[in-house]
Amino acid sequence: MPLEAMRYDITPTGLHYLLIHWDIPDADASTWRLAIGGAVERPFSLSMDDLRSRPSVTHTVTMECAGNGRAQLTPRPLGQPWLHEAIGTAAWTGTPLRRVLEDAGVRSDAVELVFTGADSGYQGDVLQDYQRSLTVADAMRPEVLLAYEMNGRPLEPQHGFPLRLLVPGWYGMTSVKWLTAIDAVTERFEGYQQSATYRLQQNEDDPGTFVTRMMPRALMIPPGVTDYPARRRFLPPGPVVLQGRGWSGRGSVERVEVGIDGVWNDATLEKPAGEFAWRGWSFPWDATPGEHELSCRASDTAGNGQPLDPVWNLGGFANNPVQRIGVTVQG
Amino acid sequence: MPLEAMRYDITPTGLHYLLIHWDIPDADASTWRLAIGGAVERPFSLSMDDLRSRPSVTHTVTMECAGNGRAQLTPRPLGQPWLHEAIGTAAWTGTPLRRVLEDAGVRSDAVELVFTGADSGYQGDVLQDYQRSLTVADAMRPEVLLAYEMNGRPLEPQHGFPLRLLVPGWYGMTSVKWLTAIDAVTERFEGYQQSATYRLQQNEDDPGTFVTRMMPRALMIPPGVTDYPARRRFLPPGPVVLQGRGWSGRGSVERVEVGIDGVWNDATLEKPAGEFAWRGWSFPWDATPGEHELSCRASDTAGNGQPLDPVWNLGGFANNPVQRIGVTVQG
Repeated sequence: MPLEAMRYDITPTGLHYLLIHWDIPDADASTWRLAIGGAVERPFSLSMDDLRSRPSVTHTVTMECAGNGRAQLTPRPLGQPWLHEAIGTAAWTGTPLRRVLEDAGVRSDAVELVFTGADSGYQGDVLQDYQRSLTVADAMRPEVLLAYEMNGRPLEPQHGFPLRLLVPGWYGMTSVKWLTAIDAVTERFEGYQQSATYRLQQNEDDPGTFVTRMMPRALMIPPGVTDYPARRRFLPPGPVVLQGRGWSGRGSVERVEVGIDGVWNDATLEKPAGEFAWRGWSFPWDATPGEHELSCRASDTAGNGQPLDPVWNLGGFANNPVQRIGVTVQG
Repeated sequence: MPLEAMRYDITPTGLHYLLIHWDIPDADASTWRLAIGGAVERPFSLSMDDLRSRPSVTHTVTMECAGNGRAQLTPRPLGQPWLHEAIGTAAWTGTPLRRVLEDAGVRSDAVELVFTGADSGYQGDVLQDYQRSLTVADAMRPEVLLAYEMNGRPLEPQHGFPLRLLVPGWYGMTSVKWLTAIDAVTERFEGYQQSATYRLQQNEDDPGTFVTRMMPRALMIPPGVTDYPARRRFLPPGPVVLQGRGWSGRGSVERVEVGIDGVWNDATLEKPAGEFAWRGWSFPWDATPGEHELSCRASDTAGNGQPLDPVWNLGGFANNPVQRIGVTVQG
């Protein structure tokens, strides 16, 4: 997502970030089935018509790729070389997963739900369908959706048409696209996407910790005009309102600070665009001629903040250092 | 555009390629004006309502970035490092430019029309609005549109909301987005985007030739499954139908050939998706175990084809060598 698109509360569908592991599946909504099985009392399956006839809910959700910020790390981890732009906010409509799981009757010995997508391919020499799991408690949270619409229209193919999981607050890898199956399992799921990647590891042997909810991040719409293709910023001297967005999947963003050449100031916060969505912020700056470094950082109600510098990990995940923008104010 | 999206006649809006020189402008359709002036008898301007009340036409158009294929060149020219994927096909709706120019009365001493977009920034140290020109004859062609809808909906911001020029058959740089002004000029326009770039040059001093209409190109949907992130292809042995699309802005595609390890075969052509759009092709292949190189090439009614290997130029423009896909057939 180009950062100037933070001007929109809801990101235009075609500007929302995408991370597609393999190919986009060729999907037919008229024959699509979601199968719910495994350690449940009453396994069953649902057509898209079945899903649409169930209660529907819309949540405005800011979603971020767990690899956002990866390109700032040295040495650069293997993976999509995102700078800051792997974000987006959309209005997702679907039916609550919880009610579907209640209809199936998740057995008391089940510990997790495994979600399977129709996309498949090789990763780490393993041929696999895309699969991720959630604990029963996380899957039962009321905001978790089986989503079939984005911004009021059927999902586009690249966003999971015709059906995806949508887990507000978590990094995007959790919200399995092209969802075909949900299986309750009685042992912790150890599939490739759950255990071999999306972990914070210092080296290959480090068991590390799992990537789960989004860390706080604030981003600024780069002010002034840019150059192509280098992307430095240029602006005239005088008053300019710096603006951007802040979000966290671990609490509410309660503070955004703006750094002007390393001096931090509190920004003014707007109302969030939704319970699970980013909130706008602004800060008036009187730009003086010369070279400047602008930055911003968010902190949330759970006490999480942003480091000044990137913190390396093997996969380059959950990296949320402060954004720094070099600007030239032309006197 | 991921190449598997060639399965759709019309590319989902969010998968159509984008090349944005600077920032996406913040546009308000309710106050947008298109000014027609310069060497015309009756200068005037039009609101979006004015434009929508004029006769409307929809054309299905395959558009390609002039820099498509650039990443295959050595040394790699500065610019977006496209492999093959800077393409897309959309149904564009708008009003014919010709009728607007007739209302303005282009003077007989005018030689070109200059189109100005609302996007601005630096390129080559020059602060500029994005501007491109067409000769009066090219601008008067009946298929050239002032387009305000893409695939039946208002343009998304990144595709030029609320108004863009749409010149079927030409590389995308011609179809100026965020269009604010059309000026008839009595001398050849020599603005940055017309003269300093988008030329086929061997070096900086070479006047070169201008990039205009799209050269023919055929692309194949990579068969089988892929690995992440390397993108090699794997498939089982046996019959597989290779499929793809071919297009040209210089004539109709009349032949697509598929290369299997360097041996060329004629593909079966489908009807084009529109007068200015790509046409599907298919070729049945009996995959045998081992490593193979698949390729494809198109030729058009104007006698243009595709070179076997990339042909270097300074900007990496209009590069249409045959696509080559390495596949592993697992016995």
